[in-house]
Amino acid sequence: MSGRDIDFWFTTGSTYTYLSVMRLPEIARATGLNFRWRPFNLRVLFDEVKYFPFPAGSPKLAYMWQDLERRASKYGIPAKLPAPYPLADSLLSNLVALVGMREGWGIDYVRASYRRWFQLGLPSGVEPNLSESLKEVGQEAGRVIALAKSDEIRRALVSETDRARSTRLFGSPSFVVDGQIFWGDDRLEDAVSWAQHGRVS
Amino acid sequence: MSGRDIDFWFTTGSTYTYLSVMRLPEIARATGLNFRWRPFNLRVLFDEVKYFPFPAGSPKLAYMWQDLERRASKYGIPAKLPAPYPLADSLLSNLVALVGMREGWGIDYVRASYRRWFQLGLPSGVEPNLSESLKEVGQEAGRVIALAKSDEIRRALVSETDRARSTRLFGSPSFVVDGQIFWGDDRLEDAVSWAQHGRVS
Repeated sequence: MSGRDIDFWFTTGSTYTYLSVMRLPEIARATGLNFRWRPFNLRVLFDEVKYFPFPAGSPKLAYMWQDLERRASKYGIPAKLPAPYPLADSLLSNLVALVGMREGWGIDYVRASYRRWFQLGLPSGVEPNLSESLKEVGQEAGRVIALAKSDEIRRALVSETDRARSTRLFGSPSFVVDGQIFWGDDRLEDAVSWAQHGRVS
Repeated sequence: MSGRDIDFWFTTGSTYTYLSVMRLPEIARATGLNFRWRPFNLRVLFDEVKYFPFPAGSPKLAYMWQDLERRASKYGIPAKLPAPYPLADSLLSNLVALVGMREGWGIDYVRASYRRWFQLGLPSGVEPNLSESLKEVGQEAGRVIALAKSDEIRRALVSETDRARSTRLFGSPSFVVDGQIFWGDDRLEDAVSWAQHGRVS
């Protein structure tokens, strides 16, 4: 094992990211690899190229739910689909996630908010999901939300989004190891293989 | 084994389709499943929604080559990348493929033209790839190309493209089994699992 870290870049508004968020802790345990959870504002990158992956009514949107349902079932991950999408506000949830990553409860928060979104149908990033997910991970919502909206945290998310852009990311989830980009939950095993063996096997 | 047929929808201008074209015959042998190779004109569907998956200079285009290289290597499929892309003319190659599917040499032609494109750097659908690939599969280029350009074959490709649209396809390769769509070479195993077991495992 190389022990290389894997950057796990994600936005809290992404649907397929639900699978990775649910799978990663067990994969980290099983492989001994360290995943650095890095929220960024993917919507900014989409807007820059006037792109949205799943337009309302599009075949691709219908397919995404079908595919997500099959793959959640494959992994034994509960999912009540379609979940509310797109989110009205993924910015705040990304900011909160960033605070959480700094303070050590970020992974638990992201998982808690995704469970509410994909299992209970409560959109991430707005109430009641926001406060309930924070409470679940032992945080006081008022304090965290105020901090999340501070200039410091806003600037930090912009900085991470800049880093994602310069890394040439364009979707979520993305895994980066050793300069190689792996896009999509379906490339998670490829990223692990690269970290362990320097190739996809 | 259910013995369900799998529709393999593809356009000859697609890059990731190279992997499926090279992998399918062995998978068909190993599983006993029957794949129906169905060329269609994906470019028409892209144009209808003003979409192109890999714009010149985009991060997604750079990623596609990186990912394709890793996955070709994983499968032991030779590839000289990046291959010429996008193709100047994938229409004629799709028409020729359709003639070939009717006459029984279509699969061999598609594989031959993809090998020239991805292993020798000779774009599919134009000379010398076109005539050389037809010769390789025992066909006289003049006859086939004239037939491919006939109204009957043009109409047949439009009809197949209409069918792809009404099936709500949006990319290549796509596998359809039992009403379920599986998009991408990386979903081939999911499609096989569905055909065999009625679920993705």
